[in-house]
Amino acid sequence: MLVVMKKNATDEQVIAVVRAIEKLGYKAHPLPGTMRTAIGITGNRDAVDATHFETLPGVAETVRVSKPYKLITLDLKTEKTVVRVGDAAIGGDELAIIAGPCAVESREQTLTIAAAVRKSGARFFRGGAFKPRTSPYAFQGLGESGLQILAEVRETFGLMIVTEAMDETGVDLVERYGDILQIGARNMQNFTLLRRAGRSALPVLLKRGLSATLEEWLLAAEYVMAEGNYNVILCERGVRTFAQHTRNTLDLAAIPEVRRLSHLPVVVDPSHGTGRKHMVTPLARASVAAGADGLIIEVHDQPEHALCDGVQALRLEQYEELVHQVHAIHEALAPRSVSS
Amino acid sequence: MLVVMKKNATDEQVIAVVRAIEKLGYKAHPLPGTMRTAIGITGNRDAVDATHFETLPGVAETVRVSKPYKLITLDLKTEKTVVRVGDAAIGGDELAIIAGPCAVESREQTLTIAAAVRKSGARFFRGGAFKPRTSPYAFQGLGESGLQILAEVRETFGLMIVTEAMDETGVDLVERYGDILQIGARNMQNFTLLRRAGRSALPVLLKRGLSATLEEWLLAAEYVMAEGNYNVILCERGVRTFAQHTRNTLDLAAIPEVRRLSHLPVVVDPSHGTGRKHMVTPLARASVAAGADGLIIEVHDQPEHALCDGVQALRLEQYEELVHQVHAIHEALAPRSVSS
Amino acid sequence: MLVVMKKNATDEQVIAVVRAIEKLGYKAHPLPGTMRTAIGITGNRDAVDATHFETLPGVAETVRVSKPYKLITLDLKTEKTVVRVGDAAIGGDELAIIAGPCAVESREQTLTIAAAVRKSGARFFRGGAFKPRTSPYAFQGLGESGLQILAEVRETFGLMIVTEAMDETGVDLVERYGDILQIGARNMQNFTLLRRAGRSALPVLLKRGLSATLEEWLLAAEYVMAEGNYNVILCERGVRTFAQHTRNTLDLAAIPEVRRLSHLPVVVDPSHGTGRKHMVTPLARASVAAGADGLIIEVHDQPEHALCDGVQALRLEQYEELVHQVHAIHEALAPRSVSS
Amino acid sequence: MLVVMKKNATDEQVIAVVRAIEKLGYKAHPLPGTMRTAIGITGNRDAVDATHFETLPGVAETVRVSKPYKLITLDLKTEKTVVRVGDAAIGGDELAIIAGPCAVESREQTLTIAAAVRKSGARFFRGGAFKPRTSPYAFQGLGESGLQILAEVRETFGLMIVTEAMDETGVDLVERYGDILQIGARNMQNFTLLRRAGRSALPVLLKRGLSATLEEWLLAAEYVMAEGNYNVILCERGVRTFAQHTRNTLDLAAIPEVRRLSHLPVVVDPSHGTGRKHMVTPLARASVAAGADGLIIEVHDQPEHALCDGVQALRLEQYEELVHQVHAIHEALAPRSVSS
Repeated sequence: MLVVMKKNATDEQVIAVVRAIEKLGYKAHPLPGTMRTAIGITGNRDAVDATHFETLPGVAETVRVSKPYKLITLDLKTEKTVVRVGDAAIGGDELAIIAGPCAVESREQTLTIAAAVRKSGARFFRGGAFKPRTSPYAFQGLGESGLQILAEVRETFGLMIVTEAMDETGVDLVERYGDILQIGARNMQNFTLLRRAGRSALPVLLKRGLSATLEEWLLAAEYVMAEGNYNVILCERGVRTFAQHTRNTLDLAAIPEVRRLSHLPVVVDPSHGTGRKHMVTPLARASVAAGADGLIIEVHDQPEHALCDGVQALRLEQYEELVHQVHAIHEALAPRSVSS
Repeated sequence: MLVVMKKNATDEQVIAVVRAIEKLGYKAHPLPGTMRTAIGITGNRDAVDATHFETLPGVAETVRVSKPYKLITLDLKTEKTVVRVGDAAIGGDELAIIAGPCAVESREQTLTIAAAVRKSGARFFRGGAFKPRTSPYAFQGLGESGLQILAEVRETFGLMIVTEAMDETGVDLVERYGDILQIGARNMQNFTLLRRAGRSALPVLLKRGLSATLEEWLLAAEYVMAEGNYNVILCERGVRTFAQHTRNTLDLAAIPEVRRLSHLPVVVDPSHGTGRKHMVTPLARASVAAGADGLIIEVHDQPEHALCDGVQALRLEQYEELVHQVHAIHEALAPRSVSS
Repeated sequence: MLVVMKKNATDEQVIAVVRAIEKLGYKAHPLPGTMRTAIGITGNRDAVDATHFETLPGVAETVRVSKPYKLITLDLKTEKTVVRVGDAAIGGDELAIIAGPCAVESREQTLTIAAAVRKSGARFFRGGAFKPRTSPYAFQGLGESGLQILAEVRETFGLMIVTEAMDETGVDLVERYGDILQIGARNMQNFTLLRRAGRSALPVLLKRGLSATLEEWLLAAEYVMAEGNYNVILCERGVRTFAQHTRNTLDLAAIPEVRRLSHLPVVVDPSHGTGRKHMVTPLARASVAAGADGLIIEVHDQPEHALCDGVQALRLEQYEELVHQVHAIHEALAPRSVSS
Repeated sequence: MLVVMKKNATDEQVIAVVRAIEKLGYKAHPLPGTMRTAIGITGNRDAVDATHFETLPGVAETVRVSKPYKLITLDLKTEKTVVRVGDAAIGGDELAIIAGPCAVESREQTLTIAAAVRKSGARFFRGGAFKPRTSPYAFQGLGESGLQILAEVRETFGLMIVTEAMDETGVDLVERYGDILQIGARNMQNFTLLRRAGRSALPVLLKRGLSATLEEWLLAAEYVMAEGNYNVILCERGVRTFAQHTRNTLDLAAIPEVRRLSHLPVVVDPSHGTGRKHMVTPLARASVAAGADGLIIEVHDQPEHALCDGVQALRLEQYEELVHQVHAIHEALAPRSVSS
């Protein structure tokens, strides 16, 4: 169930409805929009009785939700969510570019790349301190000392830090050093981690699982939001198919489908989504043309010496060219709705 | 093996090499480029002895081919092939738009749609007279009378006709009425049909099979070219995956990979590639941004009454808006190489 | 629509109903069962009017068909179809074993393998004279001279010949030399070929396409049956997935699902279904345990010199051991229904 | 690197090698076999210098490992690992049957089903107290009180308890109440959880991820073993494909491939692997025929009222019939190697 407030409902009226919901033992999720506020209700086992709310001051109507989603849905909030981090944003008019190395390898490597990322005009820096690796014998990341290097990047360059946590302890650390908490594809259905992310003050960038359906992905976002964290950014990063010319198959049809169902912003990772350098720029262009709110790009000053995923990382000059091209597309579509 | 001619080799020298190849019982495939002509050799069971050609006048070098491809490959021809049909072309600087209904249903429906397609500036008209249908009890197309309607479209509107044949008899008919012969996804490995297409004077639009690897698709093109027809247009139309929000998963990474390996032009069919109306325009934009040479779009004046695939056909005004948007992207990328 | 005859309906009554159906311009498909005969109706564009048949002598009832299937379905025929070829059968109590080389390579090779197949107790011999090959430059089969060798196998060893045709001309030839006409996976939706097979007097072994859903596969069988050929044997041969340890992923769940929907017999090809020698015997055992009516096994006297698919062909002694093991399983399940 | 001891090497000699390995800062993994003990080495960043060990008493040879695996591999241990739990075992001559409800719902339900499982001769009971659910709004399991009910099942019926943990806290609890720790498909690459399981005294049943390659699955087992827990049981439970007639596609080719590479036992879950009741028994038979060491079967006294996955749970009498059939197959194959 969701409770839709009147356009002119006061903050006090919204609070009164929230309290009425909580009094019944449920959780209230007020999501303000430009036209009206709606309040989602979770935590109920059985159907919620609408008569508790219908006559409260400021309530326009109550809506029964028949879909599996309660919070990610356009029924609750009709405008796209803009996730703000400092003075930067994801989901607004500007194209968000998140760039950096796969893994933080050293202070020097990280600062070199960060300088180029800053110069390109990007507002977000990515880099892993905790790396989920298929083999226990592969490089697993620098851990907390990697996060400290990332914090230095923020202070030096003013870039917002996007970095992954693989478990609850990792979230504690990312909260100390980072700006956006990344949940990786392999952990998209690590429900304990999702719930912990839902109790974080940081926005969450939620990668789609390797073989996740759209419904599973959106319900993973729902896990985060049900705990009270509404700043979720979805990230398409390719799915696993029979195809062998590309590491994963980037599913750009996910973008219009997310738009059809949800108010959450969606970004694309063409680096993991293809896994091959010569495909990254064409697919970055395609992602923006399809209506993505942003891109995550792997860039490295020396891809041939990268400790992780060097085969897909762009050189600095390739990255600059990519930024140039995607902005040209973003501008070409600007006067009209890019999400059709 | 391929024989590379010198830049200034004469036509007579090329012909002499072709004759030398044929004298050994092989088939010669001379493909002229702007810089030089190279001649592919097929039909050999064992390795070809290079000494037969190396000393012929005009020969620059002979190259042993270790890849599975002999004719689709950039080794043979470094410039992209431009397929010319009348004064229209696919693979050149202009974006090729092929639009029309899934099936030719009636003269009136077809001419109405054709008028709108012409008005949009497209040069190619699509429409099926022979429809491969999953069920034997579904509408199978109008057959030859459908082709006659398509011929009328060409005469009335000057649109080039792209239409499918499902067997050798069908190719005979398409040769009589059409301009480009389409091989459908289900027939991508119908080798008898591919060979027949290879003996046709019409260019061939070869759709990728539902679960075809890139290698299988390119080797299907190789079947056509090995018979002597070098005007092949590849068409990505989505592959089958676990995803359920889209009918097929459009694999745009195929575009840069085709570019990396082949001189053949590649177009995209976002209508079949998504199967859902609200995805067609975003994915059309993405295809062009990824570097496609053209698009195939299903458009219908009354999608709700279409005899075939109405759920994915755009209305006329939606189609016009699509054309507007994809041209904006094509122009934004024009000064620079769209294929990165 | 289908017309169910009374248990004691006479042949004349069945013929009268068939004529009444044909008089309306439809096609009648009488399928006799042990308990009763039912008659399927195809060729209608709109719903068939039941009142034409309900009062005819011998008619028990008419049944409207809401599923996409009219002829493969248990609604039409409740007992499993047993396809008889000479004194051998597929679909009965005995496990049918179809064995032989991928391709007929020479008379000597073929007769050597045939002797071993005969000795093992198998009743069917497989071997391709027309080979669908991914590359136009690979060995394409011996053609008619290969079929002549197969005919010699039948005469010498009394084995029934199962062999593939890739086009209508090929069907003409297989009808002259073979006993069961195989339609390969790549041609599962070559509808022209399916219709031609439907007009053949030979039983048809219809392989499942690489990415065919069960519905598409059963509707391909429906194409054959709609032309009047009811002797269709389904063959599961693995589907294409992301898995790389096996060439295809054998989908044994198809067996109980075919049983749930259809009266047609189903056999399994673990050789193509796995593509790797060490998997063939375990998966052959699994197929029989899951309820398959038979197996198609590639066997070669010298797999390391095979012109086609040697990597998956069993040696003669491995094949004999396989036959031993699958019979042990078939017997263990004999007293009870193997299809659960 | 692995160090192979001589057949007659003493325990003291093995311990001396272990100490020499640890002295270099590496981790030693001695795995005794019937013929000889071999010792795997992990924790090295660079290649290990063999000269440290080659001259130690009792050492037969050192072997450099070029595969990605160090511990799951037949190179380290040639005999199949038998995981013993009390007087029951998985991986030995007996077929292991693990049966029970998807979720522990109540004491009464659980004890009713456990009585039937015990009566069938099974030695293991499954049931979830922590349920990974796609939606945050679905039943999530009874938690610790569910584990207490499972402990009562063990005491009452002598069944060994197999139950899932989803995070480190969950492992603590399963260690208190259970016998085998299950890692679910969604958590197959939750590396924090895998490492925690590697430090547990309980055997680990590791389900294959929904789209895990065989290499990823085996490397997940390697994560557990690298921490010192060598009692890992692999569980094939179906992978995600385009197929829609079955919830997942059971990949039985995984069984011979695991056998080819690894000494670990492998069981199959045909309940999740198909998701449809009428497929469970045929695929259970197939799994045993393919060489599985055991089965996990969902059984419920009232599937129509199950809180979780009722559509795939067998009724008690269906389960009994399944046990009867799979034993018939296991016995039929007994005198010969079932893994060929």
